[in-house]
Amino acid sequence: MSDDSTTARRARGADRRARPKQPGALARQMPWRRLANPYRPMEIVSADELEAIHLASLEILERIGVAVQSERARGLCKRAGCEIRPDGVRVRFPREIVLAAIAAAPASFEMTARDPLRNVTVGGNALVFTPVSSAPNCSDIVGGRRPGTHKDFADLIKLGQAFNVFHMLAGYPVEPIDIPVPVRHLQAVRTMIALSDKIPRIYSHSVQRVRDVLEIVRLSHDVSAEEFRTAHRCMTVINTNSPLQLDQPMVDGIIEMAEHNQPTVVTPFTLAGAMAPVTLAGALAQQNAEALSALAIAQLARPGAPVVYGAFTTAVNMRTGAPTFGTPEYAKSAIISGQLARRYRLPYRSSGIATGNAPDAQSTTESMMSTWSAIAGGVNLLHHAAGWLEGGLTASYEKLIIDVEALQMFASFLVPEVVDKETLAVDAIEAVGPGGHFFASPHTLARYETAFYQPILADWRNYETWRQDGAQDATQRAHKIAMETIAAFEPPALDPARREAIDSFIAKRTEEGGAPVN
Amino acid sequence: MSDDSTTARRARGADRRARPKQPGALARQMPWRRLANPYRPMEIVSADELEAIHLASLEILERIGVAVQSERARGLCKRAGCEIRPDGVRVRFPREIVLAAIAAAPASFEMTARDPLRNVTVGGNALVFTPVSSAPNCSDIVGGRRPGTHKDFADLIKLGQAFNVFHMLAGYPVEPIDIPVPVRHLQAVRTMIALSDKIPRIYSHSVQRVRDVLEIVRLSHDVSAEEFRTAHRCMTVINTNSPLQLDQPMVDGIIEMAEHNQPTVVTPFTLAGAMAPVTLAGALAQQNAEALSALAIAQLARPGAPVVYGAFTTAVNMRTGAPTFGTPEYAKSAIISGQLARRYRLPYRSSGIATGNAPDAQSTTESMMSTWSAIAGGVNLLHHAAGWLEGGLTASYEKLIIDVEALQMFASFLVPEVVDKETLAVDAIEAVGPGGHFFASPHTLARYETAFYQPILADWRNYETWRQDGAQDATQRAHKIAMETIAAFEPPALDPARREAIDSFIAKRTEEGGAPVN
Repeated sequence: MSDDSTTARRARGADRRARPKQPGALARQMPWRRLANPYRPMEIVSADELEAIHLASLEILERIGVAVQSERARGLCKRAGCEIRPDGVRVRFPREIVLAAIAAAPASFEMTARDPLRNVTVGGNALVFTPVSSAPNCSDIVGGRRPGTHKDFADLIKLGQAFNVFHMLAGYPVEPIDIPVPVRHLQAVRTMIALSDKIPRIYSHSVQRVRDVLEIVRLSHDVSAEEFRTAHRCMTVINTNSPLQLDQPMVDGIIEMAEHNQPTVVTPFTLAGAMAPVTLAGALAQQNAEALSALAIAQLARPGAPVVYGAFTTAVNMRTGAPTFGTPEYAKSAIISGQLARRYRLPYRSSGIATGNAPDAQSTTESMMSTWSAIAGGVNLLHHAAGWLEGGLTASYEKLIIDVEALQMFASFLVPEVVDKETLAVDAIEAVGPGGHFFASPHTLARYETAFYQPILADWRNYETWRQDGAQDATQRAHKIAMETIAAFEPPALDPARREAIDSFIAKRTEEGGAPVN
Repeated sequence: MSDDSTTARRARGADRRARPKQPGALARQMPWRRLANPYRPMEIVSADELEAIHLASLEILERIGVAVQSERARGLCKRAGCEIRPDGVRVRFPREIVLAAIAAAPASFEMTARDPLRNVTVGGNALVFTPVSSAPNCSDIVGGRRPGTHKDFADLIKLGQAFNVFHMLAGYPVEPIDIPVPVRHLQAVRTMIALSDKIPRIYSHSVQRVRDVLEIVRLSHDVSAEEFRTAHRCMTVINTNSPLQLDQPMVDGIIEMAEHNQPTVVTPFTLAGAMAPVTLAGALAQQNAEALSALAIAQLARPGAPVVYGAFTTAVNMRTGAPTFGTPEYAKSAIISGQLARRYRLPYRSSGIATGNAPDAQSTTESMMSTWSAIAGGVNLLHHAAGWLEGGLTASYEKLIIDVEALQMFASFLVPEVVDKETLAVDAIEAVGPGGHFFASPHTLARYETAFYQPILADWRNYETWRQDGAQDATQRAHKIAMETIAAFEPPALDPARREAIDSFIAKRTEEGGAPVN
């Protein structure tokens, strides 16, 4: 024998026999469980280089400052000792103020769902996956690409609920443009809560909308306003308006969430070459400065407020100015950002994202590049972990399923291998002996049913069987799994009294006109 | 602004303008260069657990032994102090003999090509990629799946030569079944040498074939037999016949290569649940025992012979007995095997392989899982790094191109980011200021042309442009790139005198009947 494939060929010969039809993807998927990453995070810059990025960001905060477009936020900064000059908007942050503020943030916190089984930890070595969010369009290979509607919104929420590998919801999977804007936040969150018992992510579009949504989440938990603030029950994500600007709705959202003791992820939008320097070190220094400024404001609003260090730094396509994701620059940025977050003992958020337009080998390569670098880099909260296409312009039904498989494989990879006398199996190896096989070994028979990862999408049948059965590629099979999962969906329990309370509140707020567009 | 995609959307708007047609993939590819992995290898078992695997494998070698099907090899073992019992075939290896033997192997060695520009390092932190090899079939999406022929063999060699990200050839990319077996090795190696100046991998099918091929390689270097042995000019890969057997052609090949001072990769075929225990720890202990036995024999034949620790341990599909690749078990095995290889200070070989039947999102996910775990795990020699499908039964033209893109991205990821005053760019950030942009910054203009990775396959155009241009998915585009590359292929220089010497030798050996089938 002189080649790897000789034995592979021989082994695959056994595959020619017929086998029973596979059960549905949901029957085969992993059970719900919290994840932890037990492995040492990868580091690709030295301690000195990390310190240089840190010091550059402090210099940016002190010498250049950040334009903070909120009087309320500037008031907090001023009281803490920041100077606001020269225009009454630009806040100069002395380093000791920033560092003292963020030192108050928790390294890890628990999130409370309405069903305690859905609680999750954010930070430490815990790992949380969420599906795609905030895409204006959605697509599937039969229905094509289209602007989001309430129906697609609901169908994608169903997928987010149905697959156990998602630990939280991720906001609007697609924008439901058929719901009028003043009441969109009300209807959208109602649908999220009706279809999922996983912790929701909400939007910081304005103080009024944040308050409306927090009220709906409160009603879904059936707790008093006072009790609501004793636990972290939903999360928001805000981007900085790079370079070096904090917009009013966003920074007010940070403060509102902090005052309600609800977590905020701060994610600077530092696109290298466009909104940030073309060099990754510079873009990361700017990312870090922007993140620290917003995280400090959250802590000034409420010391100890739960926050997450978010990173999104990537390169742009220098021909077009559009961002690229899943590239080598993105992978490096994901790993260095993890080093930065850990330097401040903060939970770290990254994303499993892609540039490609189709649920194909390109976008899959890109998402895998994004996801593995985030996981190797010690990510705690992986947003857009499944279903994202076109740099975030489309939520793809098929890509979501393709990515669920990858996420399940990562979840399995993160279960440490047991190395002990039983698993080392020297006695079993002796019993089988040279030239034997392990199929019938008692050591195998006692373990084989649960020994290995079982896929939901991958087709492990041999070529001939696969071809006879229609030769469907992974994208076609993913379509079928998505549609079957939606068709078989059953919503989780929701106490009718809570549902009625939510409906009454929404009816009242709708009658009041909702939250008018500015 | 409250969501990641808002800015992405805005930024991608700029992409709507027309842009020039892209040049060919070859014009855009990375230049040829050697790779190094500067990052600390990932470790997923503790030092104690690694030691437990090591000790279990020594116990296997001592207590159970390995069936060595070669009198020549058993003679070497016996002279070194091994016992051969009870059947005259089973060699019991005392641990001190094994450990002393492999301690003589080099941690790293240089390979010499006929053109010194193609020399590579194997070991240390050097990283070498090779394309798919040893598939019985090949496929492309137009021509379909078919048994290999000399034409496909040549076309796939052309791709291996044309893409700079491949540092060596990988043996027969597909089996050329239209060449009669007795002269197949002669014709195949002639084609490899005519079409590529990269270092070839040869096969250890029998002593006669190994000698024929070494002679052709010698003639291609135009050196004496004595001088030939002063450098490492080709490589072979051998599998153990798991469990715990070393077949004669293979073990004689190890000795033949060692005596010629040519490198051998030893790769046990330890499929967990079939040819090895169903537990990964046990399969790795067996892998390690088998690898150490064969590597020790190479060192007994010639102390200091260049060898590589190969790993291939993976799970089988317990429904069919067929191996699965790119799974969580495979990823763990790739990383733990790297830890084992480094424990013995040996170069480490892994593979970038997949289970799927089509060049689609499944096989791409699987290959990415295999490749990143190998690279994170400190691999030195990544075989089958592009083009492998169906667990090795098919070499796919499109998958090869899909994987070239991923390999180029990994190569770019492995270039450490420069962190210094210039790249931290605080002055540029100050000059742009809050709310500005970096497109026109002198800091950007001085760097943008070479700042970021440029893809060969990924289409970064926006959805509308991509759709208007035919909405081709990555697999369709990969097909086009593969066929264009083959059509435009120009063979490397080969001194006519060397070519004539090779042809004369092959004519003589063909007249003698080649190497008859046993």
